[in-house]
Amino acid sequence: MPDREGVVAAAKPSFDETFRAKLNELFAWRRDVREFRKDPIGAAVIEGLVRTASLSPSVGFSQPWRFVRVDDAARRAAVIASFERANADALGDYSGDDAARYASLKLAGLREAPVHLAVCADTQTHVGKGLGRRTMPDMLVYSAAMAVYTFWLAARAEGIGVGWVSILDPVEVHDALSLPPEWQLIAYLCVGYPNDAFATPELQRAGWESRDPRATEVYRR
Amino acid sequence: MPDREGVVAAAKPSFDETFRAKLNELFAWRRDVREFRKDPIGAAVIEGLVRTASLSPSVGFSQPWRFVRVDDAARRAAVIASFERANADALGDYSGDDAARYASLKLAGLREAPVHLAVCADTQTHVGKGLGRRTMPDMLVYSAAMAVYTFWLAARAEGIGVGWVSILDPVEVHDALSLPPEWQLIAYLCVGYPNDAFATPELQRAGWESRDPRATEVYRR
Repeated sequence: MPDREGVVAAAKPSFDETFRAKLNELFAWRRDVREFRKDPIGAAVIEGLVRTASLSPSVGFSQPWRFVRVDDAARRAAVIASFERANADALGDYSGDDAARYASLKLAGLREAPVHLAVCADTQTHVGKGLGRRTMPDMLVYSAAMAVYTFWLAARAEGIGVGWVSILDPVEVHDALSLPPEWQLIAYLCVGYPNDAFATPELQRAGWESRDPRATEVYRR
Repeated sequence: MPDREGVVAAAKPSFDETFRAKLNELFAWRRDVREFRKDPIGAAVIEGLVRTASLSPSVGFSQPWRFVRVDDAARRAAVIASFERANADALGDYSGDDAARYASLKLAGLREAPVHLAVCADTQTHVGKGLGRRTMPDMLVYSAAMAVYTFWLAARAEGIGVGWVSILDPVEVHDALSLPPEWQLIAYLCVGYPNDAFATPELQRAGWESRDPRATEVYRR
């Protein structure tokens, strides 16, 4: 009778060229979405995506991500107000063409997206017994960021778009959501069916920024 | 004649149930690998994986990740020494069963892995013009962490294992690699063909930690 590891070993998957090509398409077409349809997304869909996200890597198997679905209208309004203040402040940093271009960008789909999700890192979790984060404590927030990305990729594979809103005051959002003090806000996500699909980032299409050759370079030491 | 966006739009992919099932297998079987075969990995393979990683999301399209391949024996030895010191220090934090178990864990494959990769975040990049990181400056390091994860998933889909070593002094490693001061070390990766494949994390198999139910919970607000 096979032991547990034997059972696991029997199911080892392999990934073929067809899958890899499709995976590359997923990476290329995963976009930060700011234009959503208002169609609702069922609670079970979000629960399934969070279960998938829980397969993400985490330092010392600490699994520090906490997904918070925000439905309350007053809380959502407070988040939107925080975004609008931060966006107006950010506009003040630019001048000339950049200011005009910044003002023309649609940087969040908070009003249309049917689902709002805050993702936090539990900075006080004892899970994992601190392994691997003694000298690099930020490993905990990196782990939460990777969980956001797993959610994002899995959502896109179901035709669901995700937009990560970072133009907001994380303290204001933390307060608006009455989050536990030890939960650090990593991401505020808009989730919904996108109006359209693109392989190039919106900021590239809008002429804000282009591909940086340093991002594909393999430096040597 | 279709414009550029028209061409892109014509190629919109869809992802079916077969792909999604395989993608879930990839998430489940992507492991932090510490047992490597010594078979070399060609430079073109690593270059291809870094190109794939460059498709990762980044705040304001800043693309701040910098991949550094470390081949120099003296530099590798310095990294291994840093790991060994940090690992010995960490052992001192545990007592009793935890200490015995920690001492028995193999936490890095630095000596066997044919490829060592440092991944940094360029904290001074002007790319993206600061968009999206005014109130959440850590978005830059989250972006680099997601690039590590894209590399990891793409590698696993090619049968290549990745181990993320965080038990080291990032300042010592930064010095050992003569990295530019503005490049913040996010990850030090061991890359190579794994000795075996598993769907459960090594720390779970070793009895160090188990699944945390909070990691699959959808909290409500």
